[in-house]
Amino acid sequence: MTTGKVTLLGAGPGDPDLLTIRAARVLASADVVLLDDLANPALADLAPNARVIHVGKRGGCRSTPQAFIERLMLRYARAGRHVVRVKGGDALLFGRAGEELAALRRAQVPYEIVNGISSGFAAAAALGVSLTHRDHCQGVTFVTAHRRDHSEPDWAALAATGTTLAIYMGMSRIDSLCDALLRVMRADTPAAVVQSASAHDERCVCAPLDRLAETARDAGLGSPAVILVGDAIGEAALLHATTEQREPVLRQA
Amino acid sequence: MTTGKVTLLGAGPGDPDLLTIRAARVLASADVVLLDDLANPALADLAPNARVIHVGKRGGCRSTPQAFIERLMLRYARAGRHVVRVKGGDALLFGRAGEELAALRRAQVPYEIVNGISSGFAAAAALGVSLTHRDHCQGVTFVTAHRRDHSEPDWAALAATGTTLAIYMGMSRIDSLCDALLRVMRADTPAAVVQSASAHDERCVCAPLDRLAETARDAGLGSPAVILVGDAIGEAALLHATTEQREPVLRQA
Repeated sequence: MTTGKVTLLGAGPGDPDLLTIRAARVLASADVVLLDDLANPALADLAPNARVIHVGKRGGCRSTPQAFIERLMLRYARAGRHVVRVKGGDALLFGRAGEELAALRRAQVPYEIVNGISSGFAAAAALGVSLTHRDHCQGVTFVTAHRRDHSEPDWAALAATGTTLAIYMGMSRIDSLCDALLRVMRADTPAAVVQSASAHDERCVCAPLDRLAETARDAGLGSPAVILVGDAIGEAALLHATTEQREPVLRQA
Repeated sequence: MTTGKVTLLGAGPGDPDLLTIRAARVLASADVVLLDDLANPALADLAPNARVIHVGKRGGCRSTPQAFIERLMLRYARAGRHVVRVKGGDALLFGRAGEELAALRRAQVPYEIVNGISSGFAAAAALGVSLTHRDHCQGVTFVTAHRRDHSEPDWAALAATGTTLAIYMGMSRIDSLCDALLRVMRADTPAAVVQSASAHDERCVCAPLDRLAETARDAGLGSPAVILVGDAIGEAALLHATTEQREPVLRQA
């Protein structure tokens, strides 16, 4: 029996137009699609010949065990199928790609990787800001607030870098997260929450760090969302539209 | 006279197939294309109706002054044209998008942003690694070694975060950069250089940090390239192919 292959594919932040040309081509030729629940379900329409299996991995929620997803990938590939493992955003930022690549190498199953736009970039586009405006910083750090051992990231070390922080999977504990950041950053540090960046239900708020959690809660923002913190976020178009930068601002798509 | 608009467009890391579907559509309808020299010149073929102007901004090299690029954008937009400012990678990571967005807002010229795949993600794909393997780290920091004031980034603070480092524009001074990192990181920290990620001339080397500069030089690697440093890089497929992880490894496309 011929061995198939597995493509780890980043589906981008939500808007199907933000798929890469290669991703669309790969989906069109897929035999089996394993669809992450952070990826747009409409992507199934781009894989007309594929058996589509929904495998959720959203932090905290009811989800398919990682080991089962890996067994599924290997079983179909060994049966000669082209398996496309679709992840929201980029394939190599968070989301267990490391474990899946290791499993594929152990099993000696051929694989390829197709990058996608991570939601932190789409969030910056929604705000109309550079993630790394050179007047304010020299880089950006993508970090997850959802850790295997439920410990907190080292916010003091992250703040000390002076990079813009793009925090993923943080909405479920945005209050404690902001409290932790306020111990190591200025209360008026510009910050924002962008929900469903690039998707039809995109919404964002900008507020100084000490009012971000309250502002996001009042606006009813929830997951999936990216929390952005740093002086570069003070350039947001939303804030340019207001006179008082200490005033929180909400925008809906 | 009608006002046109400006699209800040991320062209991805090099392979035209890594353009987004939206980016291809926007280029097809462009009147004027301002092409960054880190973007693939072949992209001009995707804009058959556009006047294509090459505006280089590569660090250190001969380049078009930023103020001139901004004046050009505004002049054509005010003349009613759809100007597409094409940047390598993503539109909002490094590359002066912050200044250009500010200029567009000051001039009240309508703009839109189309994200692209940044070369750090394509570099991880070339290596077959997750940027954030949860066995090793909780995030990734994208940082430029090329600072306006020619000072060094705060490597100690960056190392203290434990995030994977993706260092852009560092090849011209990789020796001093690695020396600085060796003062704050283990000599055997896994590291890699990926030149022209995703492009036809993609090449990469993996080596422990204390041998990275020498290995990259011996392999003749140059700009544009991304330097990746951190334990997550130790998962590179290249290294799995060797028995001795202390041995540097080169791969060519």
